[in-house]
Amino acid sequence: MPQGATEAEFAAWMGAIQMRVEAALARSLPAPQHVPARLHQAMRYATLEGGKRVRPLLVFAAGELVGADAARLDIAACAVELIHSYSLVHDDLPCMDDDRLRRGKPTVHVEYDEATALLAGDALQTLAFQVLAERMPEGDAALQLAMLNTLALASGSRGMAGGQAIDLEATGKTLSQAEIEYMHVLKTGALISAAVKLGALCAGPCPAPLEQYGHRVGLAFQVVDDLLDLEASSATLGKTAGKDSRHGKPTYVSTLGAARARQFAEELRSGAHAALESFGAGALRLRQLADFVVLRKF
Amino acid sequence: MPQGATEAEFAAWMGAIQMRVEAALARSLPAPQHVPARLHQAMRYATLEGGKRVRPLLVFAAGELVGADAARLDIAACAVELIHSYSLVHDDLPCMDDDRLRRGKPTVHVEYDEATALLAGDALQTLAFQVLAERMPEGDAALQLAMLNTLALASGSRGMAGGQAIDLEATGKTLSQAEIEYMHVLKTGALISAAVKLGALCAGPCPAPLEQYGHRVGLAFQVVDDLLDLEASSATLGKTAGKDSRHGKPTYVSTLGAARARQFAEELRSGAHAALESFGAGALRLRQLADFVVLRKF
Repeated sequence: MPQGATEAEFAAWMGAIQMRVEAALARSLPAPQHVPARLHQAMRYATLEGGKRVRPLLVFAAGELVGADAARLDIAACAVELIHSYSLVHDDLPCMDDDRLRRGKPTVHVEYDEATALLAGDALQTLAFQVLAERMPEGDAALQLAMLNTLALASGSRGMAGGQAIDLEATGKTLSQAEIEYMHVLKTGALISAAVKLGALCAGPCPAPLEQYGHRVGLAFQVVDDLLDLEASSATLGKTAGKDSRHGKPTYVSTLGAARARQFAEELRSGAHAALESFGAGALRLRQLADFVVLRKF
Repeated sequence: MPQGATEAEFAAWMGAIQMRVEAALARSLPAPQHVPARLHQAMRYATLEGGKRVRPLLVFAAGELVGADAARLDIAACAVELIHSYSLVHDDLPCMDDDRLRRGKPTVHVEYDEATALLAGDALQTLAFQVLAERMPEGDAALQLAMLNTLALASGSRGMAGGQAIDLEATGKTLSQAEIEYMHVLKTGALISAAVKLGALCAGPCPAPLEQYGHRVGLAFQVVDDLLDLEASSATLGKTAGKDSRHGKPTYVSTLGAARARQFAEELRSGAHAALESFGAGALRLRQLADFVVLRKF
């Protein structure tokens, strides 16, 4: 077994990155007492002490593979996690999923109010781009522009926000597997793939197999989310469970059935491993993250 | 009278820039038939055929002063106008100003629906950064990062969104002139100043007097907006008039009274002209725009 390959070693690595990213996020978010204080508190509430930080973990795993500088990975990890946080705040709003529970806590519009949640999401998105646009330590400005471009493409109307819009239109309809896949490639896959690419871009152009890996892990993440939404209770999930079927949203599970959805997730996991073949031992963390994404129980 | 200084020549210049920016916006927005079509249509509805394009005009006037390339000014103008459009869509939402009329048309959430308006605003913000992150013709990547940083700072929680949050908290309260000024420097002034700075950054670092000019014009813009909100009818304004006082929002007019607010706008106009003194004839359009912002009737 290669060095660092035990479950305990992987868990320790994850814990170390999660702590590091938490500190980096706390530094990049405006101080809670800074005017407008309520807005800044809501931004921190939405972002800190929450989540598995899957996207930052992917940033670091990809960055470590290509030998990227850790200080630059901090920045990339913050940027992608801030986009993720903003999207959760807006998705939970009454006009969207109208959700009251997220990461085991009241959602931002419940804890604060709707207008503050709207503005906090808006400002979190802006902060993601601001963080990434600040001059990086010994940075290559052209690579930094490529990172900004990657994050914007993954987040906008032909990425995450576009996936949300398709999801919205699809509610109550039956979609084919191809249509569901397109929706999920945008809704979740785009930002997960971007995380892998951003990690690589901290050192240089992203190798093509890493993009393939990101695509497969991104899709697997959503398939597993659909399965967990069906299986888990709200307590385990830290958010309202079973809401997809309640809202009449088409998912992998509603389209393929649970058994074939689980099989599809397994195929994507194998595909993600296959994409990493040329990298050898350096891709250990990326392999472990593919397994983690597919085998997780929450 | 210097060349181009007549009112008709200024109007012709404005018209030409407005048409040019309309075309650039139409090109940078996703096509209306591109999936998700409804979202893309809402983004175009919110952005095209509307407004005076004050921010793009400032981008071009500042850019022309420093000899910036017109193709780069198109990009900067689009970026700042996309941020402005997104902010209008979100400001009009029921949880914010709950407005049904904007630029003489139904607001986005009235014409489409609330969820689509939320996502359209989100995606317009993303698009602003995407447009600015794409490699510019013969661009200096470091200057481009400075532009991204300028736009992000002006838009986020310590800029426009922060000003909105202060506005929200201030509703129903009485503020001092200093407090109102701080709110407006953020809410409107930051993005107007950023427009001037972005135009200059298309050629090189922004000269300090141009930053002063931007600050004064930005503040003047908001003072005049407050005066127009009091004086104008909804038909002239193209948006709901008198809503500030109806919502109990403190404004320059409610704090200073109309006469002193008008005088303050005039002082800011003189100050903007004074900031341009060292530039001579090259700053003609910037001078005319300061006058236009303060003397406009809509």
